[in-house]
Amino acid sequence: MRYQLYYWPTIQGRGEFIRLALEDAGADYDDVARGTERSGMGLPAMMQLLESNDLAQPPFAPPFLKVGDQIIGQTANILLFLGPRLGLVPKDEPNRLWAHQLQLTIADLVTEIHDSHHPVSGGLYYKDQKPEALRRAQDFTAARLPKFFGYFERILESNCDSGDAYLLGDALSYVDLSMFQIIAGLRYAFPHTIKALAPTYPRLIALHKRVALRPRIAVYLASSRRLPFNQQGIFRHYAELDG
Amino acid sequence: MRYQLYYWPTIQGRGEFIRLALEDAGADYDDVARGTERSGMGLPAMMQLLESNDLAQPPFAPPFLKVGDQIIGQTANILLFLGPRLGLVPKDEPNRLWAHQLQLTIADLVTEIHDSHHPVSGGLYYKDQKPEALRRAQDFTAARLPKFFGYFERILESNCDSGDAYLLGDALSYVDLSMFQIIAGLRYAFPHTIKALAPTYPRLIALHKRVALRPRIAVYLASSRRLPFNQQGIFRHYAELDG
Repeated sequence: MRYQLYYWPTIQGRGEFIRLALEDAGADYDDVARGTERSGMGLPAMMQLLESNDLAQPPFAPPFLKVGDQIIGQTANILLFLGPRLGLVPKDEPNRLWAHQLQLTIADLVTEIHDSHHPVSGGLYYKDQKPEALRRAQDFTAARLPKFFGYFERILESNCDSGDAYLLGDALSYVDLSMFQIIAGLRYAFPHTIKALAPTYPRLIALHKRVALRPRIAVYLASSRRLPFNQQGIFRHYAELDG
Repeated sequence: MRYQLYYWPTIQGRGEFIRLALEDAGADYDDVARGTERSGMGLPAMMQLLESNDLAQPPFAPPFLKVGDQIIGQTANILLFLGPRLGLVPKDEPNRLWAHQLQLTIADLVTEIHDSHHPVSGGLYYKDQKPEALRRAQDFTAARLPKFFGYFERILESNCDSGDAYLLGDALSYVDLSMFQIIAGLRYAFPHTIKALAPTYPRLIALHKRVALRPRIAVYLASSRRLPFNQQGIFRHYAELDG
């Protein structure tokens, strides 16, 4: 099975959570909007699907995944679909729901990370909502982020005292790959905040390290397929927001 | 099967999306935090579970659903679980994923509705973030809400020209019950905005009406089980935000 991933070609964004799962599993996939127009891919191919009036089940926004004739949207929903197919989640329903529940909580955190620099509107520049962003980022780094980190750290702690647990227990799932991306992105966006928080959440920090060393992930991170963090994505570094 | 729903006892909030599904299906359920402490329910019973360190799969926040020993969190995830069991979604995987994708898009809209009055922090009062709320609500009513409504209206339109389609086609699903709640809540929070938008989105408005007339939903809405909208929930009416 070959998958077609559709996502904005110049940012990691929400698409990166899908890319990490596909890469760790060694899956065959096209990152369509980053392909060449000559080969029928590129941004126009994505926009054509996104703006089509002919789809019975249209996505609201990227990322979306095409599998044969089926198009699946919403990041966590795509991982719900891919998880069992890529061997990245247990097959029984209670554990699949639990993994998805954690992924939806990560999705909530992603929205809060984005809104820390864009609290008024995604349609305005950062510079046009800077006073609001200063207040929101202060709340995010002081209250919300520790609440999310505390929740996930507690789950890792209850899974394994030795410190090398995964979020679902003793085997890696797509949720761990997403948590790796959260830590990596927050280190880029909020380096001072993460440095200050790290000693309190040792299991999350260790999880990030362990995922980065997985053979396929290490190859991916060193490749040109891994886009660098930048100031257009979810994770943006504005020193004044990094409390 | 008897379900235990755990949610804040004084607001509709995110719990209402679950209540509507349980009510429409005529399911047996306890709205635990609204029960009496004498019977082992009430808010303390919810807080005990929420603050427990003994749960293998703890929820991040209400609502959560207890089914036997299983605890399921995240609103859309609970509906993913309940949908096939309550006969509120087709049983095949592509349609279950499609319903869930729509529900996740509704969840994104719910977050944006909440943040229109709380753009800085859920931990601060509205009065302490009013200037920010004025800017965010302006963007919400002028840009974001029409974008969401346009998306869902287009789906209804593609399903049926006659105007009595449901979001998944010709049968009601839990997604329609959630869309009913979105329209009902927005009418409370943003009456002027919805009055102005209504002629452009006739199918969404008609869907709201049709759901309200379903026998079990009509009984529920007239009962004391349906909490009134108020100024503590997701949908709040501040005249100055209603552009």
